Amino acid sequence: MVSTNPLPAWNDGPTRRAIIDFVARTTRGPDRIPVEQRIAVFDNDGTLWAEQPVYVEAAFVLDRVVSLAHVHPEWRREQPFRGVLERDPAAVAATGMRGIVQLVAATHTGNTGEEFDAIVRAWIGSATDARFHRRYTELVYAPMLDLLSYLRAHDYKTYLVSGGGVEFIRPWSERVYGIPPEQVIGSRAKTRYEIRGDMPVLARLPEIDFIDDKAGKPVAIQQAIGRRPVIAVGNSDGDFEMLEWTTSAPGPRLGVIVHHTDAKREWAYDRDGHAGKLVRALAEAPQRGWVVADMQRDWNVVFPFERR
Amino acid sequence: MVSTNPLPAWNDGPTRRAIIDFVARTTRGPDRIPVEQRIAVFDNDGTLWAEQPVYVEAAFVLDRVVSLAHVHPEWRREQPFRGVLERDPAAVAATGMRGIVQLVAATHTGNTGEEFDAIVRAWIGSATDARFHRRYTELVYAPMLDLLSYLRAHDYKTYLVSGGGVEFIRPWSERVYGIPPEQVIGSRAKTRYEIRGDMPVLARLPEIDFIDDKAGKPVAIQQAIGRRPVIAVGNSDGDFEMLEWTTSAPGPRLGVIVHHTDAKREWAYDRDGHAGKLVRALAEAPQRGWVVADMQRDWNVVFPFERR
Repeated sequence: MVSTNPLPAWNDGPTRRAIIDFVARTTRGPDRIPVEQRIAVFDNDGTLWAEQPVYVEAAFVLDRVVSLAHVHPEWRREQPFRGVLERDPAAVAATGMRGIVQLVAATHTGNTGEEFDAIVRAWIGSATDARFHRRYTELVYAPMLDLLSYLRAHDYKTYLVSGGGVEFIRPWSERVYGIPPEQVIGSRAKTRYEIRGDMPVLARLPEIDFIDDKAGKPVAIQQAIGRRPVIAVGNSDGDFEMLEWTTSAPGPRLGVIVHHTDAKREWAYDRDGHAGKLVRALAEAPQRGWVVADMQRDWNVVFPFERR
Repeated sequence: MVSTNPLPAWNDGPTRRAIIDFVARTTRGPDRIPVEQRIAVFDNDGTLWAEQPVYVEAAFVLDRVVSLAHVHPEWRREQPFRGVLERDPAAVAATGMRGIVQLVAATHTGNTGEEFDAIVRAWIGSATDARFHRRYTELVYAPMLDLLSYLRAHDYKTYLVSGGGVEFIRPWSERVYGIPPEQVIGSRAKTRYEIRGDMPVLARLPEIDFIDDKAGKPVAIQQAIGRRPVIAVGNSDGDFEMLEWTTSAPGPRLGVIVHHTDAKREWAYDRDGHAGKLVRALAEAPQRGWVVADMQRDWNVVFPFERR
């Protein structure tokens, strides 16, 4: 199962070597961690796939407002919907958090779990981004696919822990990342069990049940897994607590931060990112022993399509 | 992996045969279900272990009130604590749901996840029941241990979906049932990520976050697994919606109800059970195609210690 050239999309250097050494140390010898405790958690946006110029889920929201507008004539007058339809980001931004919650509720809920699954599958199978003209699931990071496979080959169970909606990720996570739905943790809408006609459904209500970000990530990890992870990988201050919780446990632990440093092949941002803001986690990485993966330096390939 | 005599604690008859036929049908031939979709969910109290004369977790609550009383002198005056200390069930019952919530909060929270784990491990390792003088983890059902193993040997992933507290079950579920913590779903207290000194903890707050019972079970299954189960096993009306949600999906599905009919070897109860009340699920079992496992008729052994 173990490749003789592990992590091929990673350049040889201290980052790649730190990962390989950690996996070797925790899978054989005196520091070996029992298989059932080998849990690795990954953030999604900016860690496994691109999050610029906007989160993929935000692109979904905007597309979905456009496609639903014909059954909501009032949206031509009411913000934040009018701003979306008129491509006026300032008007949308002016509605603040309340506007975002309205957009998420209008585009993510009012359907059943199975209906939303079908909506996401149809969209993710066809929508493309504006810069690379690729489907979003092609804009995943080849080095991270390498890392996921490498960890699984060493009996690590890989989990996705996202601030994004869990039901937005599950329809494609197994195909794209090899991460099955039961290993996807995320933010979620309230759902209610209802009988419609004589069939039960899980109705998705226009109310946020849980936001899986910042200090919510360790809480959600404990709720879903009930074990403290051994490896945590993130790219923003939204992942700080997940990295802290993981790496402050006793025994060998690994924290990895993806640093977006490559404007040519992807994007370059950290402290001024409107998505993926990274300040504290980067500043504290040295003292906490977190490994910083510098995209430009450490990755010889960013997206899988570059390999072709 | 597959025994030539599967389910040895089950008597040969229609119940055992229905289970074996279903597993055969869904693991080979035209109705074969892909491995990753083979999800089986089990209730805990009254399905995998005994729930009479009181839920095991209630016994834990009572013991813990006694052991904490020396640091809570006020409990000698205040209900429901006074009722517990004076062994006065009527006084406790008179405090109703508010009293139960107070007892759960006082005995389950105010500590960290790791502290509570240690408390449960110590208690479950030593406490014994009043009738059999056995540790509670010995009062699990041998036929259900057979069934769990049999399903896993056929690549079913087994989950526990309990109305009890998830953190009360996880410390021993892997050892006793072979069900790892990440496959245990249950009720839960609110938790908060906090830094104490310079170490992070998950503080367990005296507030209920989710009750995993009745219509809450399908909601929790979707949150945690994101797939509809193929097999559901329960014993009370608290499992009705879980059974309904599972067996109303398209394709082959199996619902099983454990019916407590054996007062000699265990307990006999259904409609008048103060725990495990079973009325509607039993009445609708025939029309819904749910298999009823009659303890007296179908199980040649109830508890594993009978085999010795």
